[in-house]
Formats: sequence, structure tokens, C-alpha cells
Amino acid sequence: MKMINLDHLSANPLLPEVQDAMIEAIRAGYGNPSSQHTIGDLAAEALEKARESVANLIHCSAPKEVVFTSCGTESINHAIKGVSLAKADKGRHIVTSNIEHNAVLRSLRRLKLMDYRVTSLPVDTYGHVNPASVAEAIKEDTILVSIMHSNNEIGTIEPIEEIAKITKEKKVLFHTDAVDSVGVVPMDVQKLGVDLLSFAVSSFYGPTGVGGLYVRRGVGLWPLLDGGVQENNKRAGTENLIGIIGTGVAAELALRDMDHRISHAEKLKKKLLEGLPNYIDEYYINGHPERALPNLVSISIRFIEGESVVLLLDEEGIAVSTRSACASGALQASHVLLSIGRDFADAQGTMVVSFGLENTEKDIARFLYALRDAVKTLREISPLYAKKAISG
Amino acid sequence: MKMINLDHLSANPLLPEVQDAMIEAIRAGYGNPSSQHTIGDLAAEALEKARESVANLIHCSAPKEVVFTSCGTESINHAIKGVSLAKADKGRHIVTSNIEHNAVLRSLRRLKLMDYRVTSLPVDTYGHVNPASVAEAIKEDTILVSIMHSNNEIGTIEPIEEIAKITKEKKVLFHTDAVDSVGVVPMDVQKLGVDLLSFAVSSFYGPTGVGGLYVRRGVGLWPLLDGGVQENNKRAGTENLIGIIGTGVAAELALRDMDHRISHAEKLKKKLLEGLPNYIDEYYINGHPERALPNLVSISIRFIEGESVVLLLDEEGIAVSTRSACASGALQASHVLLSIGRDFADAQGTMVVSFGLENTEKDIARFLYALRDAVKTLREISPLYAKKAISG
Repeated sequence: MKMINLDHLSANPLLPEVQDAMIEAIRAGYGNPSSQHTIGDLAAEALEKARESVANLIHCSAPKEVVFTSCGTESINHAIKGVSLAKADKGRHIVTSNIEHNAVLRSLRRLKLMDYRVTSLPVDTYGHVNPASVAEAIKEDTILVSIMHSNNEIGTIEPIEEIAKITKEKKVLFHTDAVDSVGVVPMDVQKLGVDLLSFAVSSFYGPTGVGGLYVRRGVGLWPLLDGGVQENNKRAGTENLIGIIGTGVAAELALRDMDHRISHAEKLKKKLLEGLPNYIDEYYINGHPERALPNLVSISIRFIEGESVVLLLDEEGIAVSTRSACASGALQASHVLLSIGRDFADAQGTMVVSFGLENTEKDIARFLYALRDAVKTLREISPLYAKKAISG
Repeated sequence: MKMINLDHLSANPLLPEVQDAMIEAIRAGYGNPSSQHTIGDLAAEALEKARESVANLIHCSAPKEVVFTSCGTESINHAIKGVSLAKADKGRHIVTSNIEHNAVLRSLRRLKLMDYRVTSLPVDTYGHVNPASVAEAIKEDTILVSIMHSNNEIGTIEPIEEIAKITKEKKVLFHTDAVDSVGVVPMDVQKLGVDLLSFAVSSFYGPTGVGGLYVRRGVGLWPLLDGGVQENNKRAGTENLIGIIGTGVAAELALRDMDHRISHAEKLKKKLLEGLPNYIDEYYINGHPERALPNLVSISIRFIEGESVVLLLDEEGIAVSTRSACASGALQASHVLLSIGRDFADAQGTMVVSFGLENTEKDIARFLYALRDAVKTLREISPLYAKKAISG
């Protein structure tokens, strides 16, 4: 049975064009972009062509502003640790939000062990950071603000432009984790006004093993990887050229098909949200109803465990997630859901549905049926639900 | 014209079996190894299978001791910075050698900016570190010794076992950069006695974009990439699964074919070394004549520039290198060659020939002819050579 993938945030399939480009690169036998002879020259050309495609996707002022990394997590670590270590003499205070991805949270936790201070801002029930609270949190010794572009569990898109105005005025560097946004919604780093922006290529149907960091020209940060002079001296290490060649193609297609992809996702999201009340009750939709990713729906279903829903749906051939794959080894309740005011039980009863290009309205219909059955089964054995029925 | 690749240290081609495995992985559409459903399970299985193959290649006591990274450079940075930051309370002194790869040198230079002290040991004319000098250099606050397994410019293999005995006795962690050794010469991390060992998969005909770090069970170090719980909590970030699947196959083949590969390389090396005196004069061979990599020959040719030889040979369809590709953007004379006692001019006149599986004795013959012509051409325009002729 072919699985219905409604967990695109964990893993997007590679587009056929991306597959073809990578396979061609594998067969072509590229050399090392940094070597001195003809074998290396072709590799260097392919590398720079891909960099240009990515720079176009996020509207850099120059391709050089794109640094290829090995994943979104590396990009985030590079941005946060790289700025913090480089600017330690200026200050050791960083501002962030309560709902960041683990790559941000744990990078900051690491820096705390090195005598950095972190102010983590609360969000409202939609998951929005208040730009005024950023302004308030910035102190004399603040060196970095890191607020995500969109949240990977509830989809809310943060007011990045407004925050960037504040950081610019206060002369503090601003990094945004845009791992779940780049290639999914339009992205213009110049219009946003950020200094650093992290992204992952798998978010737009490119391969895992490639990520990127936008570094605005003139922004100084330490490399995370010291060694050779690759990536304009910003990231040492021989490049994942096959993956990067796939990345270039994925970026071109994302830019070309952006409008179509968004309207496709919005159609599925609408169908899901409109259908839900006919299949289950006692649930909440998390995240902002408009300022949010088009391809993600977070549902907190009362009186059940999200993990159990995932397992039952898996048996029906449908893949969904309770949260980001990166956190699925950890068993605590989602810090994002607790931050937007869900209680512990509802946080545990949450699932994330994320769509992709190959999903159809039929997939959504099948999901709704399967979800209804799963919820019914689980509530029948739920002591919380039984108690509610008695008291209700 | 098909290039003759005598610069395998920069870029080994992918073996056909590795290509096939990667292409199959691309077409198969694996999911995310960390996600909770069936799509992810297959990916997790493929990941662990590859880890086992790599663990076999270097004789780990358990596959868990292998941490996949994005390149040899990341592995080295992870080992050196990860140990140094984790052990800062115990001490801030590190011992290394004068001929390490830039990834080691620059990681240490970075740590110096964070108040670490580095003792860098001299080497003899073959490039060997004296184990006694390591014992002497270890102080009360020494937390790490990092000495490479084999040198990437001259091929000399260091006395790692002897050094490991010393670090064990003195209870200091020992990391070895084995990027140019793993998959090329037999490797047994348990017999070597090291605590950490870095490697790159492209050294044994696997893809770029994958490296690995052996971390002996019980060795504590900080992750370089904080975030998700991947790689047994040692390296966050979604894995380069396609590359890692290719890695597993490359590791199996390297283990299976090791003897054959070594004797093939030794045959070519012998032909080159025996042929050289008939084609050029006034040259030195660098590195130890026996305790050295079988697949590398470093030649310092007097009165010429190595860069010019590389260009002239490139025109003849032969790729060689003056030094590691990682350093080819930098223009200084090789620190390795200066460390073994070559003067600045001879260091500049050095080229590295590195063989691979597809090279034949005919390639070596063609190289020798082309080298003779190149050297002749360059010496005709060399003021140093002219001067020598007059005074000689």
C-alpha cells in the first residue's frame, strides 16, 4: 500500500527534475570545486550556478550572500554561535522567542554554558511575538535577535519586517530561522531587512544534506567549520556537490511554481479545516488563521494522545506527525503549544498535518475518515473522555 | 579528451556500485529517519545499515561509535572544538603538530581566540612527530592531543599507536585526523587506541557531503550542531541519507578490496618513483619512503613553480595538484613542506601526485613525458635555473 504522506514537514519527496539533476551529477563524476585543474573547474561552475538559483529564490543582492551548509540545523547553529562568538567583546546578550525550533533553543542553551544571557520572549495565543517586546528586550549589550520566520509546529508567520526595523534602528544583528518558509512562501531577504536567514533545501523538494545561510554583505560572524577557504571563507569543508546541484534545480522550480504551490496547499488546507467539524469534535486549531504557512494544520484533539493517533493512522497508510521530526525522540510536551496557552493534556493530543504537491483532495477525505475512526477508538479507551461524559 | 586524474586526494570518482546505490536511494524516495511513521522507518533502517558498514571498516566496538557528519572538516572541527569546549573547566591546553591539515590548524587558531593554549610540535625531515615530544608537551591542564594519522601533502603515516599509549597513560583525550587514511590503509580504532578519529567518505570513493567521526564510547564532547536528537544526540540535523547510503556501500567495498587497492597503488607509485630520474633532475621526494600512504607521491622540483606545472599538465589533460584542494585558494607556501625543512623556493616547486583505482601504468608513463616537457619549458624561462646554470 502506498502511504499518503501528510507529514511533508519531516520529509518532502525529491521532485523528478531534482532527482534527474542529481542522478546526472552522480553519473557525470564531478571533481572538487576547489582544485586547480579542469576537473575542478566544471564542479566550481556547477556550484556557482546553484548558488545563483538559490540567491534568486530569496532575492539576495548577490549570490555570494548564500553560504551552503549541510542542513537547516547547521545554518542556524552557524548564525547564532557564529555571531555570538564573534561579538563576545561587544556583549553577551541574545533575544529570542519561546517557540523557536530546537536548533535555536539548544544553540542558545549551549551559549548560556559559555556565559551568554538569553531573553526569551512570550508569544500570544496565535504564537506571535510582539515587536514592541523585542524593542524592550534589547539592552546595551545585546548582540543578536533570533526570531523564527514561521513556526514549524503551528505554522504562524512572525512579523519579521517590523522586528527588523527595530533591530536595524538599535544596531543589533537579526537572524531568522526560515527553515519551513523558504521555498514555501515568497521570500525577499532585502525587503524583510534581516541580516541572517537560515533555510533547508528539503523544505522545497530538494535533498536533505543541504541547507543554506543568507549572510548579508558586511555581516561578520565566525565560521562554525574552520579549515579550507570554501564558501567565500565562510564555511570550510568539501561541498556536497551532488546535493547542491539538486538544490539549484529545486530552487528554480520553487520560484517558478510558487503561486501554484501556495494555491494548491490552500485548497487542501481549506478542505481539511471545513471538513473537520463533520468528523471530530472537541478540538482546537493552533496557529494564526491567516498569517500562517499554507501547507500546515495543527490540531489539538481533546482527551486523546497525539502519538496514538499517529500510530493508528500509520496502520491505515497515512503519515502524520505530532511535531517536528527532529524532536520526535524527545518525549516532553511541545514547548510551542504550552507557550500559546494549551495545557499539557491538549498539547499531548496534538497532531500536525502538512501537505505537499502530490497530495489531493481525496487524500484529505481519506485522512478525515481515518481520523474520525482513530479518535473514536482512542476516546473509547480514554479515562479522561469517560470522566467528561459522566460530568458532562 | 578524457582527463587523467592524478589528483585523487582532491576528488575520488564515485565507484559504480556507490553510484547505483545512491541513484536507487534517490528513486526510492526515502523519508526522514527521525519521523514517527512507516515512511521514516525505512530511512532509519538504511541509515543504521550504513553506520554498521562504516563501523566495520574502522573496527569500532559498536556502530554507535560512528557519528555521521557532512565532511572530514566537520568531523575535525567537531572533535577539536567539541572536546575543548566541553573540557574547558579541566584545562585549556592542546597539543598538536606543525603539519596538520588546515581544518585542525584553523580550529585551533579559533580556540586560541577563546583563551586556549596550543603547543605545536615539530616533525623530522620525513614529517614524523616524535612520541617522546608529545609526552613532554602534555601538561597538567592539557585536555587534548590532535595528531594526524597520515599527512595529506607528503603521505607520511604518524606513529599513532605509540602516541595513544602516552595519552592513555596521561589521561588526555587523543584525536587523529585520518581523513586521508580511512578506506585507503587498514584502520582499527581499537588497536590504534585513539579516542576520536575523523574521516571523509570521498577518500574511499564515496560521495562528498558525508564524513564521520569515531567517538569512543564514554568520551564526552559538545556537539558542534545543537538541535534535534539525531546521531545518538551527538550531531543534530537531518541526515544526508542519499550520501550516507552511498557511504555504506563505499565502506563495504573499501574493506573488501583493501589489499588489492593497496597493491595497485604501490605498483603505480613504484613505477613513478623508478621512472622519475629518467625524465627530470634536481628534485626531491617528500615524506617517509615506507611509513606512508601508498597512493601519494610528493615531488619538490627545483627552479620551477608547482602552480605552473599544474597548469601545463592540465593543458595536456593531466590533473595533479600542488597541495590539498582545501588550501588551493591560499597562496602561501605549504606549512608542511617548510616544516620538514624544504626552503620556500622548493616548497613552491612542489606537486602532489595521488593515484586511484582507475589509473594505469600507462597514465604514469604519460604523466612522466608530460612532466619532462613541462619542467623543461618552465626551466627555460626560470631566472633561478639560468643563474644556477651560470654558477654551476
